[in-house]
Amino acid sequence: MKELSSSACEVERWGRFELALKGPAEGNPFRDVSLSARFQYRNRIVEADGFYDGDGVYRIRFMPDQPGVWRYETRSSCKELDGACGEFVCIPPSPGNHGPVRVKDSYLFEYEDGTPYWAFGTTCYHWTHYNDELEELTLQTLKGSPFNKVRMCLLPTRDMSPAAFAFAGTCPEDADTTRFNPAFFAHLEKRIDDLQQLGIEADLVLFHPYDKGHWGFDQMDGETDRFYLRYVVARLASFRNVWWSLSNEYDFNRYKTEADWDRLLQFVQHRDPYQHLRSIHNGTKMYKSSSLYDFSKPWVTHQSIQHWDAELTSSWREAVAKPIVIDEISYEGNSSRRWGNISGQELIHRFWEAMTRGGFVGHGESFIDKETKAWISSGGRLYGESPERIAFLRRIMEEGPEDWIRARQEGTYMLLYFGRRQPACTTLDLPADASYRIETIDAWEMTVTPLAGTFSGTTRVALPGKPYIALRVRKQQ
Amino acid sequence: MKELSSSACEVERWGRFELALKGPAEGNPFRDVSLSARFQYRNRIVEADGFYDGDGVYRIRFMPDQPGVWRYETRSSCKELDGACGEFVCIPPSPGNHGPVRVKDSYLFEYEDGTPYWAFGTTCYHWTHYNDELEELTLQTLKGSPFNKVRMCLLPTRDMSPAAFAFAGTCPEDADTTRFNPAFFAHLEKRIDDLQQLGIEADLVLFHPYDKGHWGFDQMDGETDRFYLRYVVARLASFRNVWWSLSNEYDFNRYKTEADWDRLLQFVQHRDPYQHLRSIHNGTKMYKSSSLYDFSKPWVTHQSIQHWDAELTSSWREAVAKPIVIDEISYEGNSSRRWGNISGQELIHRFWEAMTRGGFVGHGESFIDKETKAWISSGGRLYGESPERIAFLRRIMEEGPEDWIRARQEGTYMLLYFGRRQPACTTLDLPADASYRIETIDAWEMTVTPLAGTFSGTTRVALPGKPYIALRVRKQQ
Repeated sequence: MKELSSSACEVERWGRFELALKGPAEGNPFRDVSLSARFQYRNRIVEADGFYDGDGVYRIRFMPDQPGVWRYETRSSCKELDGACGEFVCIPPSPGNHGPVRVKDSYLFEYEDGTPYWAFGTTCYHWTHYNDELEELTLQTLKGSPFNKVRMCLLPTRDMSPAAFAFAGTCPEDADTTRFNPAFFAHLEKRIDDLQQLGIEADLVLFHPYDKGHWGFDQMDGETDRFYLRYVVARLASFRNVWWSLSNEYDFNRYKTEADWDRLLQFVQHRDPYQHLRSIHNGTKMYKSSSLYDFSKPWVTHQSIQHWDAELTSSWREAVAKPIVIDEISYEGNSSRRWGNISGQELIHRFWEAMTRGGFVGHGESFIDKETKAWISSGGRLYGESPERIAFLRRIMEEGPEDWIRARQEGTYMLLYFGRRQPACTTLDLPADASYRIETIDAWEMTVTPLAGTFSGTTRVALPGKPYIALRVRKQQ
Repeated sequence: MKELSSSACEVERWGRFELALKGPAEGNPFRDVSLSARFQYRNRIVEADGFYDGDGVYRIRFMPDQPGVWRYETRSSCKELDGACGEFVCIPPSPGNHGPVRVKDSYLFEYEDGTPYWAFGTTCYHWTHYNDELEELTLQTLKGSPFNKVRMCLLPTRDMSPAAFAFAGTCPEDADTTRFNPAFFAHLEKRIDDLQQLGIEADLVLFHPYDKGHWGFDQMDGETDRFYLRYVVARLASFRNVWWSLSNEYDFNRYKTEADWDRLLQFVQHRDPYQHLRSIHNGTKMYKSSSLYDFSKPWVTHQSIQHWDAELTSSWREAVAKPIVIDEISYEGNSSRRWGNISGQELIHRFWEAMTRGGFVGHGESFIDKETKAWISSGGRLYGESPERIAFLRRIMEEGPEDWIRARQEGTYMLLYFGRRQPACTTLDLPADASYRIETIDAWEMTVTPLAGTFSGTTRVALPGKPYIALRVRKQQ
């Protein structure tokens, strides 16, 4: 046993401990050298995989979830790397560090420290694959946005010529799926940390069908898939803001069956020491709600849905008791493609429709004639009318109870959305023995107008007689 | 045989011949006296029922469909009325008289003289049940409107206290379903003729479920139903602009089964000498398209649908090869009821969505805070933003081919609607060996903007990047 450090370092709770070891650089260490470590807090042991980071350097990362002293010891097929041990002290988290996001009460999310998390995601599939200037611009845009989750891909599409990619090589012809590119990952990790600084979850899309044989990464064999996933999990699982999205539009990939995806999801479930949120995202299968991926399968933590009909949210809640995240509901923009050309007003309408039915919705933007290219592909600037209205909706949600659907059932809080309807009045059957305050919300104009007084029993409420109106009804204590 | 007239009168084709006869007034002639006549043109014989019109007067009406000499002879259980005979000359129709509307080529309508008929209906359920002033106002409104069909009820609702109704009596307590009120019918007939003068079809709703036992007309026995229908058909079938809608929201009536409705539809089919258009309109059954009334049944001529999702039009066309008329798709207005409070913009969107998929849509309006009450109930004035846009759509349709869906399949005419989507451009795959003109249509702003030049082959078209845009693509001769 090699004791590595006598004065233990400090790592904050849900922060990242990293151990670097020198080892062999010859051969193919990615494939040939196994490395892991057992991290122990009192009687609890958590095992984490290590990874080869190039230039003879091996690393093991670990995210402690418990304050106190953690001891570790490495295991490796290589003698140089085996049996290294040491300890560190896990200290309380710094402000803004709430831990990873977890499922709560079947349909909700919260950070591990109990702070509520309402998912207001956006999509920038390849924002980390272009250049620093654009990436900094994207981060600046995100900083001023309401978004607290970004869907982002690890693998390139057939249309891209990136300077670096996940595997070794410079182009499709010399791509070597038996080795990884540590520089690519180091850059990606920096961006995941940048998102973390902004309080944004990185919903990592591990596979996608937009390769179509160009790179070949969409049609690797099962062993190579697992080799890739194991490396990704070893490098990235210790980032507390990571979610695993096994694939985007998985059913567009003709080389894998649903059983293949099930096995890969289970593989990630098995390798991830922290059980980050995990799901898979459908493509064509949106046309019948009954043929979405079966999210009741135990290895997915939430429903990651592509569907354009927000009203189906209620049926998805009935079908499976897991959080609903409609990551694709069509994007604001003017693309010629059907998925990318709804108006901001329509997108906002869908956000409200799904949210008031108990689901979360993801944003995306796809304008094709602006200074920066489509946000959903490469990030940059946002031009649409929806982000500030999503910020308004997020504020409304954060002002309300964490479980707004249960609160409605219990009669303490109601967010009633009238959508495209424009009634001049409505009648609320409030309990006679309680007192309520009522506000009219204009989802598009972003106004909240309180009604004078308090209300009980059957209450007739005058409404503005225009679309996109909601009522917020709150019980007085 | 009693020859009634030596100098034959003239009746225009699809006009109305009427024979009045004096007969017994004692007892209950509505029930006790049978009367019909056989009308003969060359070897063709058409039989029409007569009816008792009160005060000892019996009438037989007939709509000739063939120019030339028609002879007739009555049959009656009453000797006084039996065997009366005579003739009249059917002359060509006057301008504006195109005959009754018929089904054409499975999905379309046309007048019997071959003039195309695009159904642009509206709903004024009880416009004929209030007072002359309001009725004249309704007619004036209709005259300035794009509507060429009105859905209208014969029977009162539980909330109404009409001065007269179809049956004898003054109130629910003394309503006598063994006798009719000829004055009620004479007034209704005047209004049907008023509509005819305006070129508007009267889509007569013969039953509805809004009685709920108040009048009891929703729960009469089968014999009384047939007694009522036979009288209605005898009086009204000779009006060329009549359509039969057996019931509104038939499935809301708990006293009748679908088999009952089938029998009543067949009864009307059997009694009507002219085979006017005939259908039945669903209520709740809109929620699954598969559970609409089975319009493939041979006794219905077209699909009279209530559904709020215009996109399903395509599936209804696939399901049944009969014209689709979505008579209720939600109404423009500000009612607190879900069926009556969509915006004009949303209604226009649904018109375009359904129409470009090959269906017809009905208008309705339900503002609750205007000078005249809800148009759908009592007529009056229209206040909404949709009627002028429906007029615009009607103009667009009338400028195009009668069968716009087949023309699209044949590549001679395309009306492409982008709905809530707002692409900045689209690509058309036009045949390389033909030349097309293209126009951009703004369905809401009611503009038609031609693109300069003509187009062939793969054509990229710039679009305004806003919602509610259509393209009209017309092949040059």
